[in-house]
Amino acid sequence: MRSFASDNNSGIHPAILKAIQDCNTDHTVGYGDDVYTKRAIELFRQHFGQHTEVFFVFNGTASNTLGLMHATKTFNSVICADTSHVNTDECGAPERIAGIKLIPVPNRNGKIKPADIMPHLEGFGFEHHSQPGAISITQSTEMGTVYKPEEIKELADLAHQNSMLLHIDGSRLANAAVALGLPFKNFTSDCGVDIVSFGGTKNGMMMGEAILFLNQKLAKDFKYIRKQNMQLFSKMRFISAQFIAWFEDELWKKNAQHANSMAQKLAKEIQTIPQIKITVPVEVNGVFAEIPQHWIEPLKKEFFFYTWNHLRNEVRWMCSFDTTDKDIEQFIGLLKKFSHSE
Amino acid sequence: MRSFASDNNSGIHPAILKAIQDCNTDHTVGYGDDVYTKRAIELFRQHFGQHTEVFFVFNGTASNTLGLMHATKTFNSVICADTSHVNTDECGAPERIAGIKLIPVPNRNGKIKPADIMPHLEGFGFEHHSQPGAISITQSTEMGTVYKPEEIKELADLAHQNSMLLHIDGSRLANAAVALGLPFKNFTSDCGVDIVSFGGTKNGMMMGEAILFLNQKLAKDFKYIRKQNMQLFSKMRFISAQFIAWFEDELWKKNAQHANSMAQKLAKEIQTIPQIKITVPVEVNGVFAEIPQHWIEPLKKEFFFYTWNHLRNEVRWMCSFDTTDKDIEQFIGLLKKFSHSE
Amino acid sequence: MRSFASDNNSGIHPAILKAIQDCNTDHTVGYGDDVYTKRAIELFRQHFGQHTEVFFVFNGTASNTLGLMHATKTFNSVICADTSHVNTDECGAPERIAGIKLIPVPNRNGKIKPADIMPHLEGFGFEHHSQPGAISITQSTEMGTVYKPEEIKELADLAHQNSMLLHIDGSRLANAAVALGLPFKNFTSDCGVDIVSFGGTKNGMMMGEAILFLNQKLAKDFKYIRKQNMQLFSKMRFISAQFIAWFEDELWKKNAQHANSMAQKLAKEIQTIPQIKITVPVEVNGVFAEIPQHWIEPLKKEFFFYTWNHLRNEVRWMCSFDTTDKDIEQFIGLLKKFSHSE
Amino acid sequence: MRSFASDNNSGIHPAILKAIQDCNTDHTVGYGDDVYTKRAIELFRQHFGQHTEVFFVFNGTASNTLGLMHATKTFNSVICADTSHVNTDECGAPERIAGIKLIPVPNRNGKIKPADIMPHLEGFGFEHHSQPGAISITQSTEMGTVYKPEEIKELADLAHQNSMLLHIDGSRLANAAVALGLPFKNFTSDCGVDIVSFGGTKNGMMMGEAILFLNQKLAKDFKYIRKQNMQLFSKMRFISAQFIAWFEDELWKKNAQHANSMAQKLAKEIQTIPQIKITVPVEVNGVFAEIPQHWIEPLKKEFFFYTWNHLRNEVRWMCSFDTTDKDIEQFIGLLKKFSHSE
Repeated sequence: MRSFASDNNSGIHPAILKAIQDCNTDHTVGYGDDVYTKRAIELFRQHFGQHTEVFFVFNGTASNTLGLMHATKTFNSVICADTSHVNTDECGAPERIAGIKLIPVPNRNGKIKPADIMPHLEGFGFEHHSQPGAISITQSTEMGTVYKPEEIKELADLAHQNSMLLHIDGSRLANAAVALGLPFKNFTSDCGVDIVSFGGTKNGMMMGEAILFLNQKLAKDFKYIRKQNMQLFSKMRFISAQFIAWFEDELWKKNAQHANSMAQKLAKEIQTIPQIKITVPVEVNGVFAEIPQHWIEPLKKEFFFYTWNHLRNEVRWMCSFDTTDKDIEQFIGLLKKFSHSE
Repeated sequence: MRSFASDNNSGIHPAILKAIQDCNTDHTVGYGDDVYTKRAIELFRQHFGQHTEVFFVFNGTASNTLGLMHATKTFNSVICADTSHVNTDECGAPERIAGIKLIPVPNRNGKIKPADIMPHLEGFGFEHHSQPGAISITQSTEMGTVYKPEEIKELADLAHQNSMLLHIDGSRLANAAVALGLPFKNFTSDCGVDIVSFGGTKNGMMMGEAILFLNQKLAKDFKYIRKQNMQLFSKMRFISAQFIAWFEDELWKKNAQHANSMAQKLAKEIQTIPQIKITVPVEVNGVFAEIPQHWIEPLKKEFFFYTWNHLRNEVRWMCSFDTTDKDIEQFIGLLKKFSHSE
Repeated sequence: MRSFASDNNSGIHPAILKAIQDCNTDHTVGYGDDVYTKRAIELFRQHFGQHTEVFFVFNGTASNTLGLMHATKTFNSVICADTSHVNTDECGAPERIAGIKLIPVPNRNGKIKPADIMPHLEGFGFEHHSQPGAISITQSTEMGTVYKPEEIKELADLAHQNSMLLHIDGSRLANAAVALGLPFKNFTSDCGVDIVSFGGTKNGMMMGEAILFLNQKLAKDFKYIRKQNMQLFSKMRFISAQFIAWFEDELWKKNAQHANSMAQKLAKEIQTIPQIKITVPVEVNGVFAEIPQHWIEPLKKEFFFYTWNHLRNEVRWMCSFDTTDKDIEQFIGLLKKFSHSE
Repeated sequence: MRSFASDNNSGIHPAILKAIQDCNTDHTVGYGDDVYTKRAIELFRQHFGQHTEVFFVFNGTASNTLGLMHATKTFNSVICADTSHVNTDECGAPERIAGIKLIPVPNRNGKIKPADIMPHLEGFGFEHHSQPGAISITQSTEMGTVYKPEEIKELADLAHQNSMLLHIDGSRLANAAVALGLPFKNFTSDCGVDIVSFGGTKNGMMMGEAILFLNQKLAKDFKYIRKQNMQLFSKMRFISAQFIAWFEDELWKKNAQHANSMAQKLAKEIQTIPQIKITVPVEVNGVFAEIPQHWIEPLKKEFFFYTWNHLRNEVRWMCSFDTTDKDIEQFIGLLKKFSHSE
């Protein structure tokens, strides 16, 4: 089966799997007190700054929910795009687990701006009102777009001026780094970002996410929170080794570059098909497009994908580290066949 | 490094790793809607009964906490041994996540009996009092002992007579099965157990635990609870494939048998050392012993392990699927050297 | 001090205070097992139907939060108007205490319609998505408007068609009953409403709110939830006696009628002042109006009130059971003085 | 009906009721921003120290649960007597609401000592273990005994040496003050106590409890927590006025003195009845005694009370501010009649 459903429908990159295999020797103290974890943390610090505190967790829901939880109090609200994963796809984990009130604001191709947030910066000090505590953005966004460093800085400044924090859901941060052509640090720590929920799973790892506290103070006591919230991995080395392989030899970059370029290729070919309209600028590894409704079901049988907006027949096609030229060509071939037979 | 610290200081059994590798082909729908997961669930049903509902989670804390949470209401209490992992080693996850009040009762070599529980079966219907909702036992126990089927049945009957449920923390259920010489079903479903938190990680898997609702009704809506509680794995096939390999060819049995027999070997040799006193019957893969205090530090440098009770200089030595005869021999050699030099 | 700030800035109606006094004799079993509470519950059943289950709590935040909590599961969402008290004025209690995800939808003078809700009735069965579990409306609304019975029925039907419940925040239900000229039952139980958070405090009581489960099954185990959530009053008779006095002699109706008519009077007089624009139809006891910005501060010094919308200089003037003709006249006098001096 | 069931089966002291009446004039800003609340807080500061931060809540469950919650983190444990109200009579509110793990230790007539606590001061820094965060004691205790200031100081010192806090459940603190013959300050602030859950309801108030943060820093942000946890009273003046009346003219002292002396009288008379054995020293307003089993039911019909320990036929008789000499005499008369007829 081949699919454009999600970058997590792919398997494990061979180099990652090899890393798991290579560290599978002998006994190792559990729960992260091991050389692999030390090394992986060191690598994160090289990419995000020496003051970064790093905690590995199992998945993105945990990474987002616990990152936001530790940065806020239960009476805080978190302002985010209405399209954000924390708002739409965590089954209410931020509310239930962290006690957070999310304030979704309208997005522009998945992004939000200070002007969208400002009307909600109110009620400070008024105990009846959830106190604005953080802004959360996704980089790259759920709509396949990318914030520029100056946009991020503007949001971080707005947050800090109001004693709030800026959180990034970075489940696809690597794709953004590649699109921007910038090191991670340039559009996170350097812009004043406070917390990053950093994802490896969607970029070739088996599983593994990292909560990065870019401000050391924010990490206080987090080790208890991770354990209590059921995210402490006993055989931690097997996440750590993946991240090591992923950073060394710049595998993260190669994987992200590949996925992004496959999406570009797909987008380019699509422009030749008159019945399809690309709805969002293709900046990373996803293509959003409106297609004729009666194409959807037969297409899905060949290459699985998700309908994004049922009302508009908008679909999402995600490319991955292992999407092949052949995948794109066969899929485009299929689309063209549909197109010509009309 | 070799250690007797915990059965989770071991790595991955080669056959498990091979299974991960073998399923690492192509794209697969995420979150468990795949053939590997279907097969793994089927295998669980073969071992626990056709009505078993199976949900994979990342670790034991989640398996225990969410299993108990879904079986109780927030105003329930759960009665357990004071030595139980849920009481001592989850950093308060049952209280914080599930809202449960744990009622720890004194243990007998890690086990509890109806007589220990009965004094706490009170206050039913009285709204000031946490309502007893479940009994939780560990099989095999944290002290390396095993409940007999009739003991489990007796506890299940007591629970059901009081409209409560019986939960088993089965992070080492395989070791118990081997020690009893019985199929899983005989000392779980057949005895009236309601929920099992079933562990693979400590018996040769990379990671993977399963929450088993032996009574189908108890599983209602659990899929939302797993997701909301940050335990839904996107690339689920990589847990499922491990369980498949683990059940097929009875790897679970071989691993557990090996670990148990290594502990027997260790215990047998220890009896020849006069300064060491085994404190708990060795029924599975752990040996508890009081040793001279000044031996502890130098010993730990060679083979890492944990002190169980600092006041009594009681230590715990755990054997694993990959503990070797040589490990035992070297360790015993060391102990004898200490012994003779006194 | 006189004010139009809120109907809870008033004190206790003398008949209510007398009822507290009258029941202050002798000893009474605590926590609601007393004759006053039995009688008060009976009176609620006369007004809402014989199957109503009644639980008294201390305040409106508790009444809303625990009512919604008991009617939903942690993975449910609750759809409400963006202006609803549960969304704006509970400091995130529904999220933190109940684990609910609120989905605020745009209001029309404080009210919502099926068309506003329907776009959010999606993702059923999809575990990534908070499952729509209830619709919550406020009667009378925070904007001083009233749902007609047929509008409520339409919302209840929509809810039930989707296996959801309909909840009413009824902190001012008495004002709505008076405005509609209908018994409570006609626009609650008879329309299919499932739960009412019923308020007495804003209509002349010292304090006292009731969670009404109009469907008996929904009340199961709620007594434990009330206690655990810190809302069980030991000297319960002192809430119950208030409700008895409030229902007997129709004090609730007299108080609400008075408050509503004072708002009508205020609104009528205001129409003669050209600089003021009433922004919402005055249907119960509140008047919303845009006034010249520079009037606000000096006015507040004489009669305290709240600015509702700072951007539009919209203010809220609430009338209460104890608002007097003189209050209105003096206030109007003041407004006219401002008006003429321009 | 007359009863010895609990000091909360009494009504409201007339002076308290008068205070409610007296402040029932005119409009007052809600939620505590009023002169009554300012005055009540001032009075608390006179009794507990100028740095005391004072928050009124509705009942004792809230006072204990939220006081402990704000002083600890979710991963903390709280050590308390097994007989403590937080452990036995809050239906698990500390666990569910505050996420706290309670560690009950054996009591000595309701009291605990450093030696009882010390074995649980372990696992600091070890993320698997709930981190000891506070000690909670009850003054006067649930068994009707009183801690001496030096005993409290010893516990506070132990707590602080371990970076923990000392909390007092003071639902009957007034009775202790009277028994000790000391101002509140001498056995709270002066001994290093950090938080007091202070009760008025059991000593003649209609309702009203105060959370006292004796260390100002601990109170940070608590106003949001009170609101979010459903404990903010809109018509706050009606709690505040009660506390004013209670402190002025030393009503608290008179009430507590009376209740205590009635218990002494009861205890003294009981000593003449050979079939009754007083089981706990009578230091405040409760008498615990073992009585013949067949007396219990007929006695309860005349004067309601609770059986404390069913196994030992131990009953609890509580005296209150409104227990009369006649109550005692009639009850003793009844007991003597039972005694003589054997």
